[in-house]
Amino acid sequence: MQLSLMTWQEVEAYLTDRSAIILPIGSQEQHGPMGLIGTDAQTAEAIAHKVGAEREIVVGPTISVGMAQHHLGFTGSMTLRPTTLIALIVDYITSLSRHGFDQFYFVNGHGGNITTVQTAFQEIYAEYSLAGADCPIRCRLANWFAMKDVVNLTQELYGDKEGMHATPSEVALTQYLFPDHIKSMAPSDAAPIKRMFTDASDYRALFPDGRMAAASELANPEDGKRFLEIAAKAINKDLSAFLAGEK
Amino acid sequence: MQLSLMTWQEVEAYLTDRSAIILPIGSQEQHGPMGLIGTDAQTAEAIAHKVGAEREIVVGPTISVGMAQHHLGFTGSMTLRPTTLIALIVDYITSLSRHGFDQFYFVNGHGGNITTVQTAFQEIYAEYSLAGADCPIRCRLANWFAMKDVVNLTQELYGDKEGMHATPSEVALTQYLFPDHIKSMAPSDAAPIKRMFTDASDYRALFPDGRMAAASELANPEDGKRFLEIAAKAINKDLSAFLAGEK
Amino acid sequence: MQLSLMTWQEVEAYLTDRSAIILPIGSQEQHGPMGLIGTDAQTAEAIAHKVGAEREIVVGPTISVGMAQHHLGFTGSMTLRPTTLIALIVDYITSLSRHGFDQFYFVNGHGGNITTVQTAFQEIYAEYSLAGADCPIRCRLANWFAMKDVVNLTQELYGDKEGMHATPSEVALTQYLFPDHIKSMAPSDAAPIKRMFTDASDYRALFPDGRMAAASELANPEDGKRFLEIAAKAINKDLSAFLAGEK
Amino acid sequence: MQLSLMTWQEVEAYLTDRSAIILPIGSQEQHGPMGLIGTDAQTAEAIAHKVGAEREIVVGPTISVGMAQHHLGFTGSMTLRPTTLIALIVDYITSLSRHGFDQFYFVNGHGGNITTVQTAFQEIYAEYSLAGADCPIRCRLANWFAMKDVVNLTQELYGDKEGMHATPSEVALTQYLFPDHIKSMAPSDAAPIKRMFTDASDYRALFPDGRMAAASELANPEDGKRFLEIAAKAINKDLSAFLAGEK
Amino acid sequence: MQLSLMTWQEVEAYLTDRSAIILPIGSQEQHGPMGLIGTDAQTAEAIAHKVGAEREIVVGPTISVGMAQHHLGFTGSMTLRPTTLIALIVDYITSLSRHGFDQFYFVNGHGGNITTVQTAFQEIYAEYSLAGADCPIRCRLANWFAMKDVVNLTQELYGDKEGMHATPSEVALTQYLFPDHIKSMAPSDAAPIKRMFTDASDYRALFPDGRMAAASELANPEDGKRFLEIAAKAINKDLSAFLAGEK
Amino acid sequence: MQLSLMTWQEVEAYLTDRSAIILPIGSQEQHGPMGLIGTDAQTAEAIAHKVGAEREIVVGPTISVGMAQHHLGFTGSMTLRPTTLIALIVDYITSLSRHGFDQFYFVNGHGGNITTVQTAFQEIYAEYSLAGADCPIRCRLANWFAMKDVVNLTQELYGDKEGMHATPSEVALTQYLFPDHIKSMAPSDAAPIKRMFTDASDYRALFPDGRMAAASELANPEDGKRFLEIAAKAINKDLSAFLAGEK
Repeated sequence: MQLSLMTWQEVEAYLTDRSAIILPIGSQEQHGPMGLIGTDAQTAEAIAHKVGAEREIVVGPTISVGMAQHHLGFTGSMTLRPTTLIALIVDYITSLSRHGFDQFYFVNGHGGNITTVQTAFQEIYAEYSLAGADCPIRCRLANWFAMKDVVNLTQELYGDKEGMHATPSEVALTQYLFPDHIKSMAPSDAAPIKRMFTDASDYRALFPDGRMAAASELANPEDGKRFLEIAAKAINKDLSAFLAGEK
Repeated sequence: MQLSLMTWQEVEAYLTDRSAIILPIGSQEQHGPMGLIGTDAQTAEAIAHKVGAEREIVVGPTISVGMAQHHLGFTGSMTLRPTTLIALIVDYITSLSRHGFDQFYFVNGHGGNITTVQTAFQEIYAEYSLAGADCPIRCRLANWFAMKDVVNLTQELYGDKEGMHATPSEVALTQYLFPDHIKSMAPSDAAPIKRMFTDASDYRALFPDGRMAAASELANPEDGKRFLEIAAKAINKDLSAFLAGEK
Repeated sequence: MQLSLMTWQEVEAYLTDRSAIILPIGSQEQHGPMGLIGTDAQTAEAIAHKVGAEREIVVGPTISVGMAQHHLGFTGSMTLRPTTLIALIVDYITSLSRHGFDQFYFVNGHGGNITTVQTAFQEIYAEYSLAGADCPIRCRLANWFAMKDVVNLTQELYGDKEGMHATPSEVALTQYLFPDHIKSMAPSDAAPIKRMFTDASDYRALFPDGRMAAASELANPEDGKRFLEIAAKAINKDLSAFLAGEK
Repeated sequence: MQLSLMTWQEVEAYLTDRSAIILPIGSQEQHGPMGLIGTDAQTAEAIAHKVGAEREIVVGPTISVGMAQHHLGFTGSMTLRPTTLIALIVDYITSLSRHGFDQFYFVNGHGGNITTVQTAFQEIYAEYSLAGADCPIRCRLANWFAMKDVVNLTQELYGDKEGMHATPSEVALTQYLFPDHIKSMAPSDAAPIKRMFTDASDYRALFPDGRMAAASELANPEDGKRFLEIAAKAINKDLSAFLAGEK
Repeated sequence: MQLSLMTWQEVEAYLTDRSAIILPIGSQEQHGPMGLIGTDAQTAEAIAHKVGAEREIVVGPTISVGMAQHHLGFTGSMTLRPTTLIALIVDYITSLSRHGFDQFYFVNGHGGNITTVQTAFQEIYAEYSLAGADCPIRCRLANWFAMKDVVNLTQELYGDKEGMHATPSEVALTQYLFPDHIKSMAPSDAAPIKRMFTDASDYRALFPDGRMAAASELANPEDGKRFLEIAAKAINKDLSAFLAGEK
Repeated sequence: MQLSLMTWQEVEAYLTDRSAIILPIGSQEQHGPMGLIGTDAQTAEAIAHKVGAEREIVVGPTISVGMAQHHLGFTGSMTLRPTTLIALIVDYITSLSRHGFDQFYFVNGHGGNITTVQTAFQEIYAEYSLAGADCPIRCRLANWFAMKDVVNLTQELYGDKEGMHATPSEVALTQYLFPDHIKSMAPSDAAPIKRMFTDASDYRALFPDGRMAAASELANPEDGKRFLEIAAKAINKDLSAFLAGEK
């Protein structure tokens, strides 16, 4: 149920009895010596497509570049300024709500996107609140990597070596998705997390090879398959709660 | 050590061996039948001033209107659009960093500000990261109401009746600060939290008198004094960690 | 009648037969060797609160940082870019007008704010004018320091030594308001006003200690009390004219 | 010395020993039953061109649409939003300052432009002040209609009948400039000025035919010639003071 | 039929049975050793005024500064940033559409404006499309220099020597319009067009005297007269097609 | 050579002797009764990936939502406002140029993007031109559907029935790419192109099923394969010219 693979009449038919859409959002940013730059977009997209297919819910186009200013010290990383990403999300939602979509469920693959996406939701709601109008739109941001069952599996498989960036779990998932693009790395310890970073040069000084306390080399495609399944299951359940108007 | 009560020469002298500033941020928004509209600004300001005095750290002007679009269904509530608040924070920090301040510690009294303020920090860092320049600035947002010791005290005093908005803890703190402005309310149960809200009309439909599961009437000035002390202590400790470059 | 000290129900009751609000606006900027950085916000706020109390008109939160780019050459001064201040004022007024406030009376303590605030009013009116809609909102900016009776008193007390920045009148008013924060200065002549300034470095070159032809040292708390009273009286009268729809 | 009639080499030669430019700014807005919509641009341009020719100072392109939201209730009136006009002025000045122009003297024909243009100057200065850089640019806004000698002549010729909009003085000046476009009007009293207006519908309600207390019909081309001469003389003198770095 | 030379009542009368307006747009930019900086605005304005007079269609104020960033390497050139020009066009059209103008026909004298002006039209349409509202406005951009009959005449008169900037055709037209401002140049070959330029320094490196393959010296006022006539005729015809709702 | 499938070290290695990147840009918009909503993004991406693989040039993430306001009358279509798309492109290019990419070659699948993308390039160049700095960046927009050889093939295969939107050529290309998503349609004539459209409701009134004079039903996967090959070949050649600094 990808929007991009439908005709407009098919979308029109869909909206006769449903009004939800899933929007994957990721990032293009370094993921250490063996992680792919597109990891966060690839994982979010794969999970969203799986859930969309299972639930027969339309999945919109993936937002493949997000807020990743802190990774710009590593070649190939890209970012939108937060205010640009806010404008983009406002336009996506405004476009789709015009047609009758009113439940926007974002599947997110990148921690750095969280505050900006949540802020974009508020920017939309504020427009209605300031006008004294009823907002027909509901949005939720779901971070697959932070779902309880996913976290449990990372702990079971990797314990402390999961880390926080270029994690074995996300690398594994991309290995499963792109078996022809599995990279290897020389064994080396990832820098530990002593404190949070600010800008790109600060990040690079703290985490010289891009990883945050993560043993990316533990990743393997079989684990990746498990993460895809467990993440899709968790997202599926959370989506049900969202559509039911639950917390 | 309020910036507003200093001369420019005193600030210049301060900056010869220190570079930190505390910035209180709150909101003007309904706080139920007996809570003050200025609660979030008043509490953040009081805690920030107390910590600033104890630590001899300059405290800047309070940002008294924040991001509170969801409260606009209740008379007297005010909001900045998220993008306006981002611009304001960028200007505050840019102004002050010109003089040599480089450690910005925000004491926040309003949950609704969190994502926007964090996004503003990213907007600043992004400017440096995109230019390939080193950012000299570090920012932290500390939410007094979410500090562990504060939460523990709310649980000890009110348990489930603390709720999430117009809480007895914040009302108590303002009662302590403004003994001439203690309001009373007719006993009534606050609406429970079934799900998160979106815009102002949705919020009002879910929480008809403005409270989120909070028994504001449990508040009393004595509790307020305790909250001021425990919050200031917790913020003080977190500030030390921040200034030490710790997580 | 401070908005921040009211409950939303009290504001609702207020609006049943009134619709005016007073908004103090000042600045955080150097005021010479003995003037406080918060002078303009403190004086505007004190006068606004006094008038609000006398007239039983709601006073909103003080805009404590204004347009003061020309003072950034002196440590501790802060500014909003003019376009940020415009956005802030638009949001304040839009929020409050949603509830039924429609007479916005700004009490201003800083000359540098004048053109930007007036421009913000036009930005709001333009929105209605371009849409061909009737604007329900009326705004006025009142500069307490420029009220005729205030100017007369400055001439009577200080003559030419009043100057234009860090004036004895404004310093006196803050001395009355903050008796614990009265500063002294080494006797020295303030730089005379040869021409108007442009940016911060130009201002500092023209006015090395921050004062513009003002003998701040003439200030004393007793004078400050007189200024508070006479300014409040003048603002009170001007407010009456505004509410009566007069020029 | 119109920029538009020069080659780039001529401008380059000019800048070898001079750096000033005059920029006319007006408006397209109703001027009552017999005033031209372009009055404010036409008068500012004519005066600027006359002064530029006499002083051999380059005159840039006329900003022909200004801030006139309050006139939109009358057909044919145009406005820029204040924030658009600010952006335009920033771009004009930035373009020209790149080549070495650094003294920007705006000749203004419209009262409604004043606060926005002054705010634009501050927006430019703020960019330098926030960066801690020296601003090489100086700007001044000169309102020809408010120059002392001009006001004196209006009083001599028309007294109270000069009014504030669609005044006989400005109408006279355009009659002198455009003798083929002199309009007549049925005799009628202009509405008196009871109070200041807000948006376009308010303006129209107060001033039904567009004039503000002005007896436009007193205008004649001979008076117009006198106004052009006296205004040019006054502007010329003020320009000298500006270029001499005087107040 | 210039808007600036009409009264508001005349515009009101015009709109009782017509709703079109012609808007000239040009640029202030170098035009080689003998071309005028205002060439593009002057030519567009002259053609627009001629067509407006012949067709009795109102002609609005000329947009005299456009998008010419690539010419900033030559003294005297000015530009609006594209986003500023978009805002300006949105405000022009919004102002005029409020009065009932709904057919906006831009006569353009500068190739560098094309994409930005077309983008501005889309920005306006998008506002309606996103709101699900019917847009009452139609816009067209007509480039006089690219009209087929104009191009034919340039080929007939100058062949390959017409070039692409500071062309003999546009120089000729301004010579006809401003006979007192005809400049001469030392004979020299214009740089050939090897590739398209990017920014101002790239343009200057490619085209050292500002001309793009154009033999400006071939221009003469008689040719200019022919270009004015043939361009006006072509624009007149295209305008008819536009007003008839044709392609 | 997809950026998203590389590690940052691989990108770093690539940049040691190359500096070009290909960026596909498309749209999500209706393509008539049998065309896919993602057609323009899918075709641009496929061609870009093919060329990138053949030339060993890095291909960045696809911009999958473009400027398609005119299609919003048909369910499922999405748009960015032009100013949002400009901001996005500025951020993409700024991010990548930080790492050393300086040749930006956009492969475009949607006519509606052209003016906005070109305007974005100018916005970037203007930043340098206004600062008087040398811009290291060169950008080109290549529209695959308008390459001469592609147009020739459409004429050979479909003649007049190619039309302008939901064309058999683009539908064929997506059929080849997504054989599992080939749709059929009831035979019907597409609306002819009488004139250009403005907003979404105008477009729908002119082209009731979304097609512009295009016989989509003539599409077949075999033709699609030919279009992919011929388009890639044409783009490849144009890219060579671009990288050689040719026109």
